Amino acid sequence: MTQNLVTAAVLVIGDEILSGRTKDKNIGAIASRCSDIGIDLREVRIVPDDEMEIVAALDALRSRYTYVFTTGGIGPTHDDITADSVAKAFGVGISEDPRAIALLLERIKPEDLNEARRRMARIPHGAELVENSVSKAPGFWIGNVIVMAGVPAVMNAMLDAVTPQLTSGAKTISRGVAAGTLPEGAYASALGEIALRFPDLSIGSYPSFRDGAFHNEIVVRGKDPLAVEQAAEQVADMVVKSSLDRR
Amino acid sequence: MTQNLVTAAVLVIGDEILSGRTKDKNIGAIASRCSDIGIDLREVRIVPDDEMEIVAALDALRSRYTYVFTTGGIGPTHDDITADSVAKAFGVGISEDPRAIALLLERIKPEDLNEARRRMARIPHGAELVENSVSKAPGFWIGNVIVMAGVPAVMNAMLDAVTPQLTSGAKTISRGVAAGTLPEGAYASALGEIALRFPDLSIGSYPSFRDGAFHNEIVVRGKDPLAVEQAAEQVADMVVKSSLDRR
Repeated sequence: MTQNLVTAAVLVIGDEILSGRTKDKNIGAIASRCSDIGIDLREVRIVPDDEMEIVAALDALRSRYTYVFTTGGIGPTHDDITADSVAKAFGVGISEDPRAIALLLERIKPEDLNEARRRMARIPHGAELVENSVSKAPGFWIGNVIVMAGVPAVMNAMLDAVTPQLTSGAKTISRGVAAGTLPEGAYASALGEIALRFPDLSIGSYPSFRDGAFHNEIVVRGKDPLAVEQAAEQVADMVVKSSLDRR
Repeated sequence: MTQNLVTAAVLVIGDEILSGRTKDKNIGAIASRCSDIGIDLREVRIVPDDEMEIVAALDALRSRYTYVFTTGGIGPTHDDITADSVAKAFGVGISEDPRAIALLLERIKPEDLNEARRRMARIPHGAELVENSVSKAPGFWIGNVIVMAGVPAVMNAMLDAVTPQLTSGAKTISRGVAAGTLPEGAYASALGEIALRFPDLSIGSYPSFRDGAFHNEIVVRGKDPLAVEQAAEQVADMVVKSSLDRR
């Protein structure tokens, strides 16, 4: 399904990200996937394993964007409180879901299905399950909120599982123009003029720093392929001209 | 200076992070630094290069936490709107700061100090400058908001520059206990009981997935060194016992 503007937010849940112990890899993966399928990722939040914080963030985000992707907090341990927090945010009950139990039993022997593991089958009422091809314990999808695991391998498997069901929007096309070590300050004014000519495009200048020097890339993004190509051409011409001006 | 509880939030500003083009490295670096010096990082947000969004996020975060660290949007190009947005959030004026111009002239020849580069010297009134040992163009600090560059090498230099001036809190001590491939589900109940015994500590179980298997680590965190050691010992004993139970 395609509609014109589809937006999303990511909500990362986990003390381990905020403490710096674990470096998040999921935000970038979800951001890239959204770009690939024409969903505009508009906001990301990272909150601790705290029910009030999770519910507040969920409510702020789900009322504002087409989709909210959450990662983290759906394992079997006491600090995994995402499912209960999502149920609370939606004002629905939560209990062991027979479909989830059946999935767990594909990986876990019946005699090993203890109370802790059964926690992974607690699903808010009314949610659809999200397949986990790595380790079976499912994510779920309720309203416009898609709840996924925090372990990147599992998150990616769940993201693959939900992608075909997402409404995709008009795809954003992106063209990069390398500016090499030409300083941003040498082309910023000319670039600003091009940006004014294309108000519907997003034109950004992105420096990176390596070997003691800045290397810049200018990226043109937008929904209209022709406008993106035209702007990228003007940027490329401008970079050549700015380089010559500096000789 | 030390006081008991010092909190922080990070606000990442930039379309390039939300588009997936650039993978953020600053959140993890700031999170680790905060942990190192006893500041509790409580929340992170990523927003686009959009003044209304930046101002709204700044206001939400700066009223709630001791410090707000922002990254991104302080270069010379048209899409660098962080300084103006911060001035707007604080309701103060913004103009070219002679101290910032002097710093730029350490790197840029007077004849190259064009209009675009002068933009990097626009500083909200009342702000202190934050030194940039990499490329001179400074960050700034106004109220409880510390504004830094998005390029990781520059952000890290600015973070180093402000760290000695931050109020640090009681340091959080962290002990990790490796659980190897012992499944979370095999120890989750016993771990939950330990967590109940230490309500002031944060005890988390963190799986990673490699070579087709989950590898788990249990991390005990808290401000009371004795309690952290006691809890970590109980966790270590519990892991041994759980492993033996599985034989």
